[in-house]
Amino acid sequence: MLFWQCIVELFHFTFLIHFVSAMPNWLLPENIADVLPSEARKIEELRRAILDNFHLYGYELVMPPMLEYVESLLAGTGADMDLRTFKLIDQLSGRTMGIRADMTTQVARIDAHLLNRNSVTRLCYSGSVLQTRPNGLHATREPLQIGAEIYGHAGLEADAEIQELALSTLSLAGFSQVRMDLCHVGVLRALLESDPNAQRDEAALYTALRAKDVPTLEVMTAVYAPVTRAALLVLPTLYGNADVLQRARAVLPALTGITKALDELAILVGLAGKADVTIDLADLGGYQYESGTMFALYVPGLPNAVARGGRYDHVGETFGRARPATGFSLDLRELSRLLPVAGRKCAIHAPWGRDAALKEKIIALRQAGEIVIQSLPGSENDQDEFECDRVLVLENGNWILKNLG
Amino acid sequence: MLFWQCIVELFHFTFLIHFVSAMPNWLLPENIADVLPSEARKIEELRRAILDNFHLYGYELVMPPMLEYVESLLAGTGADMDLRTFKLIDQLSGRTMGIRADMTTQVARIDAHLLNRNSVTRLCYSGSVLQTRPNGLHATREPLQIGAEIYGHAGLEADAEIQELALSTLSLAGFSQVRMDLCHVGVLRALLESDPNAQRDEAALYTALRAKDVPTLEVMTAVYAPVTRAALLVLPTLYGNADVLQRARAVLPALTGITKALDELAILVGLAGKADVTIDLADLGGYQYESGTMFALYVPGLPNAVARGGRYDHVGETFGRARPATGFSLDLRELSRLLPVAGRKCAIHAPWGRDAALKEKIIALRQAGEIVIQSLPGSENDQDEFECDRVLVLENGNWILKNLG
Repeated sequence: MLFWQCIVELFHFTFLIHFVSAMPNWLLPENIADVLPSEARKIEELRRAILDNFHLYGYELVMPPMLEYVESLLAGTGADMDLRTFKLIDQLSGRTMGIRADMTTQVARIDAHLLNRNSVTRLCYSGSVLQTRPNGLHATREPLQIGAEIYGHAGLEADAEIQELALSTLSLAGFSQVRMDLCHVGVLRALLESDPNAQRDEAALYTALRAKDVPTLEVMTAVYAPVTRAALLVLPTLYGNADVLQRARAVLPALTGITKALDELAILVGLAGKADVTIDLADLGGYQYESGTMFALYVPGLPNAVARGGRYDHVGETFGRARPATGFSLDLRELSRLLPVAGRKCAIHAPWGRDAALKEKIIALRQAGEIVIQSLPGSENDQDEFECDRVLVLENGNWILKNLG
Repeated sequence: MLFWQCIVELFHFTFLIHFVSAMPNWLLPENIADVLPSEARKIEELRRAILDNFHLYGYELVMPPMLEYVESLLAGTGADMDLRTFKLIDQLSGRTMGIRADMTTQVARIDAHLLNRNSVTRLCYSGSVLQTRPNGLHATREPLQIGAEIYGHAGLEADAEIQELALSTLSLAGFSQVRMDLCHVGVLRALLESDPNAQRDEAALYTALRAKDVPTLEVMTAVYAPVTRAALLVLPTLYGNADVLQRARAVLPALTGITKALDELAILVGLAGKADVTIDLADLGGYQYESGTMFALYVPGLPNAVARGGRYDHVGETFGRARPATGFSLDLRELSRLLPVAGRKCAIHAPWGRDAALKEKIIALRQAGEIVIQSLPGSENDQDEFECDRVLVLENGNWILKNLG
């Protein structure tokens, strides 16, 4: 038995060596993949449905470029976004450009400088972003980001509209059980401002809180003021339905920032109506440029949030024009993977030929929304995505449709 | 008068110096631009209409990645594509990756290795490509490429279908006057093969022929065999309706490759039916990987071709699987710019509020396809893309629509 195992291992190893040394030229980089027909069609349909929904809410579509100078692309973002961004040199200017790893700052720049309106502006977008490193072992480095933003309204009504829009997006995508986690960066910010020791550890605290890594928090907070320590250790437990807000008021220090944050969350819970809302004061994803309430949407079967959003009033400032901003985005590729594969489309088979009557018949069928595949001589086969259930045949001088067995 | 001119010039100069030294961080790289709402909506609608048309012809959508290792991305392409491609280092593998500057080889790779079918395969795609240098002074470096390809059929029927599809694409985009230029790389290839001197100048000859630069051709061809020289100098004049093919047979040497090319062009002219076809034996755009007949579509008002296509049977070979291939592509951004700006969309204004009856009414209107913009407290303004011509008001306990002056 052992002998055969060794042989098998050896064989595997030899194969691996051979494979790596003669790497075929069609192999893609890690966490980069093609999207094949059935999945591509699903993504395209989802993309259209979501953009149409944004349109019905009055959101205007914009298309920021794939690359910009790093000064604008990374304006107001943190070190994490910098590390995630591919850099390259512009041959025309000699300056460093970045490929977008996120479209939020781009859209904020468009609002601040291109549209330059004083009124409330609703914008939406959809496009590929590229990341130097994947977010997880199997995560793609090329998410297809789609999102919507409101600029110019500081009130919670804008946050409520964005949350409603995000929930309706998942609903039209076919998800009936969606949970919304609410959080507020103001809680952590207020704690950090009240304790210089904690302030120094901001990035590490953020990471530990997101992971609800209490052992690490216990070690880190040992040197902080007791009140800060107690608050940071209790944060990961402040999770649950709206009652959590009452508990938070009781156990967290009564700092102005914390009280304001909890008040805002209470209002948003009220505005969320019948949605399934959970408070999670440690769910700080996207904390990098966010400035107020944040939310994350979860669906059954996926541990990570499928959509994230929140307020990021400070992004516009870096472009010299502070505008209140709140929005959300999601990865269309990931969302699509959670949905069932679409069935094959019914199509009509037509013979090859330039006969005017045949051409006219084909044009009329396509105008009526039918898929007509004209076979090329010698290859009367089906396409994989389509199932030809009918065929065009010439009978008594007329082209008619016949069902295929 | 002169004094004041000097002062004004000085002022301009000072302003310029100041502007360059304090370059604002929201400035985009040259030949890179945002697409704002009215244009973005036009592009999106065009994109959908074209993809839908491909679908009705039986083309399956694929989505290749934005980046690949250069070995696969540049497989089978020439030095020009290499220079156009942005390169960056993959942090996960240390290998060089390229951002796609063209999607044709990517789709050929998908046909060759991912789908791996023996049957005829029709694929289509749409996505951004990035180029290190613009194609012209005002050309974008980020075209939005959309295209369709047929794999696995070597006959001219596939070329005819692709040409029909390209023409129908421009027709549905609203162009009624489209001219199709036909060309064949076989003519130049046969001439080069017959004369080693000419063969050495392949790239320069190609450039001069595309530009119909006869003076340069006269200098370059001075050392060639007289028959090659005469043929190369006559090529730029072989332009016009189908009669050009007769003239070409008379004035070009009767090489096998040339006869075959002219025969194929004659068949395609016949298959093109009522389309406005011109022969242009020097219109060699895309010559880099093309292998047979080529075509370019022109519309009034734009000197450059708006769409290009042709046969490129050799691309699959570099992936170890030679498959006949023919296709076409165009830049959606450029095509869209030629079309009239869409008017503002009519929308309905709704007041802010969480009143259940109001919410229900808004949902019902949106489901009926109406754009409903719920104003945020304190900002009852229009959005720029939408013109609110109706408003929801509460009368006698019911939410009803009223026309706005």
